[in-house]
Amino acid sequence: MNFLSDTTAPAHPRLIEALAAANTGYAPSYGADEISARVEARLKDIFECDLKVVFAVSGTASNALALSVLCPPHGAILCHDEAHIHRDERGAPEFYTGGAKLIPLLGDHARISLESLDNALEQIPEGFVHTSPVRVLSLSNLSESGTAYRPADVADRAARLTDRPAVVHMDGARFSNALVSLGCTPAELTWKSGVDALCFGATKNGALGAEAVILFPSVMDRFETLQAHQKRGGHMAPKIRFMAAQFEAWLDDDLWLQLARTANERATALAAGLSALDGVTVLHPVDGNEVFARIPEPIANRMRAAGAGFYQWPDGSARFVTSWCTTPEEVAALTLSAAS
Amino acid sequence: MNFLSDTTAPAHPRLIEALAAANTGYAPSYGADEISARVEARLKDIFECDLKVVFAVSGTASNALALSVLCPPHGAILCHDEAHIHRDERGAPEFYTGGAKLIPLLGDHARISLESLDNALEQIPEGFVHTSPVRVLSLSNLSESGTAYRPADVADRAARLTDRPAVVHMDGARFSNALVSLGCTPAELTWKSGVDALCFGATKNGALGAEAVILFPSVMDRFETLQAHQKRGGHMAPKIRFMAAQFEAWLDDDLWLQLARTANERATALAAGLSALDGVTVLHPVDGNEVFARIPEPIANRMRAAGAGFYQWPDGSARFVTSWCTTPEEVAALTLSAAS
Amino acid sequence: MNFLSDTTAPAHPRLIEALAAANTGYAPSYGADEISARVEARLKDIFECDLKVVFAVSGTASNALALSVLCPPHGAILCHDEAHIHRDERGAPEFYTGGAKLIPLLGDHARISLESLDNALEQIPEGFVHTSPVRVLSLSNLSESGTAYRPADVADRAARLTDRPAVVHMDGARFSNALVSLGCTPAELTWKSGVDALCFGATKNGALGAEAVILFPSVMDRFETLQAHQKRGGHMAPKIRFMAAQFEAWLDDDLWLQLARTANERATALAAGLSALDGVTVLHPVDGNEVFARIPEPIANRMRAAGAGFYQWPDGSARFVTSWCTTPEEVAALTLSAAS
Amino acid sequence: MNFLSDTTAPAHPRLIEALAAANTGYAPSYGADEISARVEARLKDIFECDLKVVFAVSGTASNALALSVLCPPHGAILCHDEAHIHRDERGAPEFYTGGAKLIPLLGDHARISLESLDNALEQIPEGFVHTSPVRVLSLSNLSESGTAYRPADVADRAARLTDRPAVVHMDGARFSNALVSLGCTPAELTWKSGVDALCFGATKNGALGAEAVILFPSVMDRFETLQAHQKRGGHMAPKIRFMAAQFEAWLDDDLWLQLARTANERATALAAGLSALDGVTVLHPVDGNEVFARIPEPIANRMRAAGAGFYQWPDGSARFVTSWCTTPEEVAALTLSAAS
Repeated sequence: MNFLSDTTAPAHPRLIEALAAANTGYAPSYGADEISARVEARLKDIFECDLKVVFAVSGTASNALALSVLCPPHGAILCHDEAHIHRDERGAPEFYTGGAKLIPLLGDHARISLESLDNALEQIPEGFVHTSPVRVLSLSNLSESGTAYRPADVADRAARLTDRPAVVHMDGARFSNALVSLGCTPAELTWKSGVDALCFGATKNGALGAEAVILFPSVMDRFETLQAHQKRGGHMAPKIRFMAAQFEAWLDDDLWLQLARTANERATALAAGLSALDGVTVLHPVDGNEVFARIPEPIANRMRAAGAGFYQWPDGSARFVTSWCTTPEEVAALTLSAAS
Repeated sequence: MNFLSDTTAPAHPRLIEALAAANTGYAPSYGADEISARVEARLKDIFECDLKVVFAVSGTASNALALSVLCPPHGAILCHDEAHIHRDERGAPEFYTGGAKLIPLLGDHARISLESLDNALEQIPEGFVHTSPVRVLSLSNLSESGTAYRPADVADRAARLTDRPAVVHMDGARFSNALVSLGCTPAELTWKSGVDALCFGATKNGALGAEAVILFPSVMDRFETLQAHQKRGGHMAPKIRFMAAQFEAWLDDDLWLQLARTANERATALAAGLSALDGVTVLHPVDGNEVFARIPEPIANRMRAAGAGFYQWPDGSARFVTSWCTTPEEVAALTLSAAS
Repeated sequence: MNFLSDTTAPAHPRLIEALAAANTGYAPSYGADEISARVEARLKDIFECDLKVVFAVSGTASNALALSVLCPPHGAILCHDEAHIHRDERGAPEFYTGGAKLIPLLGDHARISLESLDNALEQIPEGFVHTSPVRVLSLSNLSESGTAYRPADVADRAARLTDRPAVVHMDGARFSNALVSLGCTPAELTWKSGVDALCFGATKNGALGAEAVILFPSVMDRFETLQAHQKRGGHMAPKIRFMAAQFEAWLDDDLWLQLARTANERATALAAGLSALDGVTVLHPVDGNEVFARIPEPIANRMRAAGAGFYQWPDGSARFVTSWCTTPEEVAALTLSAAS
Repeated sequence: MNFLSDTTAPAHPRLIEALAAANTGYAPSYGADEISARVEARLKDIFECDLKVVFAVSGTASNALALSVLCPPHGAILCHDEAHIHRDERGAPEFYTGGAKLIPLLGDHARISLESLDNALEQIPEGFVHTSPVRVLSLSNLSESGTAYRPADVADRAARLTDRPAVVHMDGARFSNALVSLGCTPAELTWKSGVDALCFGATKNGALGAEAVILFPSVMDRFETLQAHQKRGGHMAPKIRFMAAQFEAWLDDDLWLQLARTANERATALAAGLSALDGVTVLHPVDGNEVFARIPEPIANRMRAAGAGFYQWPDGSARFVTSWCTTPEEVAALTLSAAS
C-alpha cells in the first residue's frame, strides 16, 4: 500500500519495451532522431495546433526551462502560494530565469482565486521601474491539492492579463489526470483557454523519466532560446531517442489517458472509502489522483501499522497519491486497515 | 559506417535489461532507492576511497554541476581552449557557477601544457580584488583530441595549484577510454594524482543516458550544496532508480572496461588503416576511441560516398569516433572505401 | 511642501564642503584611501565592535550586496511582504544572490509578527533538498510603514533562528531615524540584538549618495567575498574617497543623529497636525520620519492644490516623508492647506 | 609624481562647484530631475543623434550594464585578451549578462586584429545549439595599451559582423582621450562607424564618479531593459541629480575635451622624455594618456626612489598614466629622476 507519490511507481512495461525497440543501430543525437520527430507530430495532432517541444528529465527542469523563456530576469511570476515551482523546486525558476521574482497568491484548494489575482495585479503596476512587472501567470493543473482548473477557470484567469505583455504557463506534471477528470480536450484545457506554454509530464503517469515543454503558437518564436537554455541547463540529452521513445509509447493507443483514468478511479474510490470512516474528512475535491484528508491520529497509526505509505502534509493533513499501478485491492486494504 | 560520435550508438543491451529488472514495484524517489545505494558502494570499491555521487542526464549537466560547487561566481576556471566546457556547452559552466570566468589555455593535442598553465597562474594574482582568482583547473581525460593525460601528467598540473585555494576537476566523459588505454587504476588517474572531482560518463560508452558527478574526500563537504544545485538545476530525476540501474549494469563484471576496450581497439585499427593511406596523416596520438586525421578531399569524398559518417573538425581535420558497437567490418569498410 | 520622499531632499551643505576638502591631490583608489580608513575606525567606535564595511551608491545596492554574502543561491530570505527588498528593488536580491528566494511574511505596521515568522519556520524544514532553507531573516528598521523594531523586538525574532545556520540582516536605509526615535545605542539595535549585517543608509538623511554595508564579527569572514561582489556588481567606485568623505562629515559631531532628530520631529508634528483634522486617521505609529494617513479625498485635493507633494500608497493611504531639511513652516502649511 | 592611474587624480573643481549648485531645494529622484534631462539633450547634440542614457558610478558598472542588454546569457562577447571587461572586472560582464561567455582575441597594442577577429568568427558558427553565438564585439577605445582605434578601424571590425545579429560595444572609459587624439567627432568614432552602445567615462578625466551608458538608435529599443537592469543592479542612484550635475559641468564649455587634451599632452611629453633615456623603450603608440615602457631596473629604481608612482604591468613593462592635473613639472621630474 504505497500512496507516498506517483513518482515511487514503476514505469509502464510498454515504455520499457519501447526503449528496447529504440535501441537498434545508430541514431542522430541531441533531438535530430526520427522518434523525436514523430512525437512532435503526434503532439500537434493531440493538441490540434502547431507547436514546438523539448524534452527534459524532471518536472522541475521542465517548469524552469519554460519559465526561463517566458519571464525576463527583471519580471515577476504569479503562482499559488503552494505551487510546486514556489515550494518544492529549490529555487529552480529563480535560477533559470536569472533571478525573476515569484509572487505567491492565495485561493482555496490550491487554485488561485480571481480575487487574489486581481489584488496582485492592482498592486503591481506596469512601467514602474522599481517593481518587477508581471510577465507570467503560472497555473498548476492538477493543483497541489489535487484539484483541477476547468477550461473556463483557466480562461477567466488568463483574461486578467490581456492588457499586459504577460503569458500563461501551465505546470502539467499531472496534466493527464486533470484532463481525463474534466473530460475536455487537450486543446481546450490549454491554448484555447489562453495557455501559452505547457509542461506536460509523463513521469508521474507511467514513464521512467520524460517531461515535455510545449510552446504553443503564441510563444513559438522563443523556441531557439528555449533550446539554448535546454542545452546550457544540461537537459539536451545526447541519446534523446530514449526519451522520445518513452513519449511515443505513452501516447500510443491513448495509453496515457488510460493510465490516468485508472489512477483517478483509484483516488475516487480511496476518497469514498476514507469519507466513510468516522472522523475522517476529505479536504479537497478529488479531481485527479490525489486525496487529502484530515485523519484522527489513531486511524493514521493503524494505517501505518498495516504498512500504508503516505505523507503528512504541512497543513497537518494526510496526502494519498494513487498511480497507474495502484490496485483496487490496495485501496480496499487501506480502508480496511483504518477500520480495524 | 557511423563514426560521427559515440553518442549516436545504441545502449548496451544489458542496460536495457537492467531497466526492465529495476521496473518492479514501488521504490523511493529522488535518490533514496536501493540501487543508488549499491552503485555508490560499488564506486567506492572501484575508486578505493570514500566519495559522494549524484547522477545527471548529460555530460554538460555533470560538468556544470561539478564546477558549480568547485568555483564561486567570482572565480576563474582554467581549461584548454578546445575544452568541451569552453566550446560546446553553450555557457553551461557560466550558468551553473553564477558567472564564473573560463580562461582558455593552450597545449598540443588538446592537453594543457605546463608552460601555458604557468603563464596563466603568473598573470592571475591571488588576492587582487579586480581579477577573478583561479579556483579550478579542469582537465578533460580523454581530451578533445582523443589524447590522455597520464597520472603523472595530472599530478604535475595539480601540483602547480598547491599554493592557492584551487581544486582539480576532471571531465571524464570518456574516462573509461582513457583508463583502459593508460592501464592504470581509477584511483591513480584521479584522487591519487590530485583530482578533487570527476565527471564520470557512461552515456558515450554504452548507457542510455547516465553520468555521475563524483566528489572525492577533499571536496566531499560540498555534497549538500551539490545536491541543492542538482535539484535546482532540474537534475534530481524523480525515478532515479532507472539511472542508477544503468550504472549498476554498466559496472557489473567490468562491462564498462570491456566496452571501452572494444571501442579503443577499433580506433587503433582505424588509425592504422588511415595511416597506411597515401596522403593521410593521423594528427594526434590515439589514446582512446577517437582518431583525427588530415585527409585529402578526394579520399574523404570517396568515404562519404561509401556511406561513412564523420565530422569535419574546426581545424579542417576529420574526426572519427568509434564506440562499443563499432565492428571490425565497419573499420575495414572505411579503409577500403578510401582506397577504392 | 515636498513630502514625496527623503530622496528628493538636497544633501546637507557640510557634506558638499567635505567633498571639496577631499578634492586635493592624489589619493589611492578603490578604497585604499585615508578617509575610508578613518570612516571604518569611526564606525567601530560608534558600533562598539570590530566590523568590516564597504560603500555603495544606493540602498538597493547595499541590501543586495549584503544579502549576496548572507544567503546562498539555493537558500531563502524571510522578509515582510511590504519590505523594500521584496517590493521595490526590481529583483536586486534575487540577482545578487544568484536566485535566492524571498519569502514574504506578515505582521501589523510592516513589522514581521512572531506568529508569521514561526509559521514560516515551521513550514520550511531544514535538510529537505526540495525546499530552499531559511538562511536570512531581513528586518527593515524603520519599516516600510515608518515603524521601528525595538532592540527587544529584534532579539525576539533573531532568537527564532538559533537552531538554523541563518543570520539576521537589517535594512537600515532609515536606521538613523529609528535609532534616535528608540533612544538606544547603535550596538543595542544591531549586533547586541542578533543582527549580523547592517545596511546603514546616509542618502535619505543628508548625503548625496552614500550607503554602507557593515558586517559584524559574526559574519566578518565573508568580507573578501563581499568585496568581490562589490567589484563585480560595479560598486567599487574608483574615487571612493568621495563616498567616504560624505560619511565622515555625516558622522562628525553627530550630524547624522541631529539630522534624523530634525526629520523625526517634523514627522511627529505632521502626524499631530493631521490627526487633528476631521476624518483623517494616522495609520501607523510614527517612529521616524514617515507618516501614513487615511485622508478624505476633498482634503487630499486641497493639499495637492496648495502644492503639497506626497504619494498615494498601494493600500490607499497617503504617505508623507519628512527629511532633515523639512521646515516647521512646511508642516504647518500642509495642515493649514487641509483645513482651508 | 603620481602616474599610478587617472583614478587617483582629484576631480576638477568645476564639478565640485556644480554639486554645490545642484544642492538647492527638492528635486525628483531616480533620474526624473531637470539636470539629467539637460545632460541627455546635450549628449544628443554632442553625438549628433537621438540616444538614450543612464548613469553609473564606475566603468565596470557601465560596461556590465551595457553588455547586459547587448548579449543574452547564452551568447558570446568578443574582446581583446587584455580588455578591462575580461581581465579587470572580476567577472562583472558574466554576472550582469547572466553568464555570457567572453572570448579573448589577440592583436598588437591591445587592439583586436582583423585576423584574430576573422578566425574567431569562422570558428563560431551561427545556429549551432552547442556553441554560444557571437552577439557582441567589444572594443576598448583607448585600449588597455593606451592605443586608439580610428573610425576606420572601428568600421572595419564592425563590418565583419553584418551577417550576424551582433552589435558593437565600445568601452570608452578613456573615450575623451582617444577622441582628442584622433581629431574626429564623437559621432564618427561611434555610431557612424558602427558602434551601437558606448560606455562614456568621465571619472578618469575629471569627475568624482560619473559614467554614462549610451544607447544609439540601433539599440534604443533596449532602453527599458537597461533601466530595469540599472535598477536591479543597484545603480539607479536616488539623488541622481548629483551624477548628472557632474556630467553637465564636465561637458560645459568643452571642459571634457580640454582636460583630455591636457592629459594627452603630458603623456606625449612623458613618452618623449622616456624615449630619450638610454635603454628605455616605449612599447606602444601613445594615442592618449598612457605610456608603457620597458625600463632597465636601475632606472626604474631611481624613479621610485625619487617618489614616482607607477605600476609594473603583467608583461614586465611599466605603465605611466597622466591625468588632467598632471603638471609639466611632474613629467620633467620623472625624466630627471631617471637620469640622475
